[in-house]
Amino acid sequence: MSKNLKRILTGIQSTGTPHLGNILGAIIPAINFSKQNNIETFLFIADFHSLTQIKDAHIMKENTLHTAAAWLAFGLNPEKTIFYRQSDVPQVTELAWYLSCFYPFSRLSLAHSFKDKKDRLDDINSGLFNYPILMAADILLYDAEIIPVGKDQLQHIEITRNIANRFHTLFGKTFIIPKDYLTENTKLITGTDGKKMSKSKNNIINVFADEKILKKQINSITTSSNKIEEPKDWKNCNLFNIYKHIASENDSKKMKQLYEKGGVGFGNIKKELIGLILEKFSDERKQFNYYVSNIAEVEKILSKGSLKAQTTANKVLGRVRKKLGY
Amino acid sequence: MSKNLKRILTGIQSTGTPHLGNILGAIIPAINFSKQNNIETFLFIADFHSLTQIKDAHIMKENTLHTAAAWLAFGLNPEKTIFYRQSDVPQVTELAWYLSCFYPFSRLSLAHSFKDKKDRLDDINSGLFNYPILMAADILLYDAEIIPVGKDQLQHIEITRNIANRFHTLFGKTFIIPKDYLTENTKLITGTDGKKMSKSKNNIINVFADEKILKKQINSITTSSNKIEEPKDWKNCNLFNIYKHIASENDSKKMKQLYEKGGVGFGNIKKELIGLILEKFSDERKQFNYYVSNIAEVEKILSKGSLKAQTTANKVLGRVRKKLGY
Repeated sequence: MSKNLKRILTGIQSTGTPHLGNILGAIIPAINFSKQNNIETFLFIADFHSLTQIKDAHIMKENTLHTAAAWLAFGLNPEKTIFYRQSDVPQVTELAWYLSCFYPFSRLSLAHSFKDKKDRLDDINSGLFNYPILMAADILLYDAEIIPVGKDQLQHIEITRNIANRFHTLFGKTFIIPKDYLTENTKLITGTDGKKMSKSKNNIINVFADEKILKKQINSITTSSNKIEEPKDWKNCNLFNIYKHIASENDSKKMKQLYEKGGVGFGNIKKELIGLILEKFSDERKQFNYYVSNIAEVEKILSKGSLKAQTTANKVLGRVRKKLGY
Repeated sequence: MSKNLKRILTGIQSTGTPHLGNILGAIIPAINFSKQNNIETFLFIADFHSLTQIKDAHIMKENTLHTAAAWLAFGLNPEKTIFYRQSDVPQVTELAWYLSCFYPFSRLSLAHSFKDKKDRLDDINSGLFNYPILMAADILLYDAEIIPVGKDQLQHIEITRNIANRFHTLFGKTFIIPKDYLTENTKLITGTDGKKMSKSKNNIINVFADEKILKKQINSITTSSNKIEEPKDWKNCNLFNIYKHIASENDSKKMKQLYEKGGVGFGNIKKELIGLILEKFSDERKQFNYYVSNIAEVEKILSKGSLKAQTTANKVLGRVRKKLGY
């Protein structure tokens, strides 16, 4: 790695087809970020982590494919970004074992990912409990320097640093200590029900879906019961909140005026939103469908990425094994 | 694997040079067992597990070498036995991750290996907590059918079966469900202080040690304070208890008579024991020293073993990955 390149690493959850919230909040910002010249990006589909939730081969494969297709459709450049599937570099589980021997059980049991679910302990599998260790391995295995995270993920970076430092105390400097790069959640996209858009809440907008499904999703956006002729409150309107993230500034301004003036119904606004999504994401929809229908091409891209990832992984793992006496 | 062959798997702890207790209680019985015609033996040095305790590259390497040398010295046949180092087949950590997603945290926290140490929770690293999962992977990765275990290890086999069955419930038959083969602890060897011989108790007899060290260890065996001329109680004599495991039946009988008659001091009995060990284990001592001085040869044997182990491991792992959708 050139001295002037900063290595950024991001893991992508693959629990379903990326929805509008993922696209605006994660995919587009990350791809823009990766276009900078002074950085090198590692981006992986976290399909080992998915197993803590998904136990179905078809869904597992489809989620990975759709996730890869969505990122590629939105312009991820696999020549510039090291784009790979976590499970194609299983060395990460070996590192996770090593790291687990350096991190106290009592501290691991304080991780949010575990504590938040403690009230339904029967549902927690041991994989979920070990999640932060595997995540630390995901980061340390690639000598990643900067990890963009939301606030809720900050603890995982802290755990990663803590494990690395414990290792260093006994064996000397071995890992790159990663820095977090706090991403502001400016693009918090609400779902069709006004809550945060999330697959588990069944309130998503899938911009890759068939027009029919997309229409159904948009039409299900909850609004106030104002009549057509009445002025409407755009500030507290979920429909407007979604609209403004997709429309141009100028169109948003016009829409605000329409809300304030009255005379336009929510049905019409929804129609406009549908048209806007279909138009704005026309290329991405085509690209997504292209990749989904050309699995071999996606596989080829991911394989190439994993080969590059392997090179770094083996180098770091070699360092660790030597220190430990393997 | 031929249908008539039963596959036996045993993991060997490698926390130090095998002592007399290990040799009489584990190494000799296992090697005799492996000589049967209808079985195929997988025998591995559990150096991944060692990391939960040992964090020193030199000790880690030495323990593995001494463990391998001891087994080879006592007649392990690497042509017949698949003899390998756990860390040479890191696929086991990948399987461990998969399995962890099938085993409830709440059940794992009930494992003896964890519960027994709960009162000194600060010392427990996450690796130690996950120990039973890695052990399940050790077994299931090799389609092992029979696992010889002491009573204290029985729970690990139960956990292994439980995980495999949980996996099967969701994905259909994938693993061989292992049977335990309870080994009776007839050869419970007491240490120099009369307690169970164990490295952590610092009461071991190392039959491979230099004569000077061996003498020191034997001379430290605690005895009663009976005078030379007095009759002595062999039933409650720790020295006799060790002696009888090494001497022939006839010599043991004679020794009993000497105890009962009186006229022989413990010092002389210790001298006889030293002579007996040096004579009885003369070949094994030579062989052990040969292997310890010829590391490359040991490495070659273990590498050959791990290649064979890899073949099975990759086959089983392939089955698992396919079922899970990787």
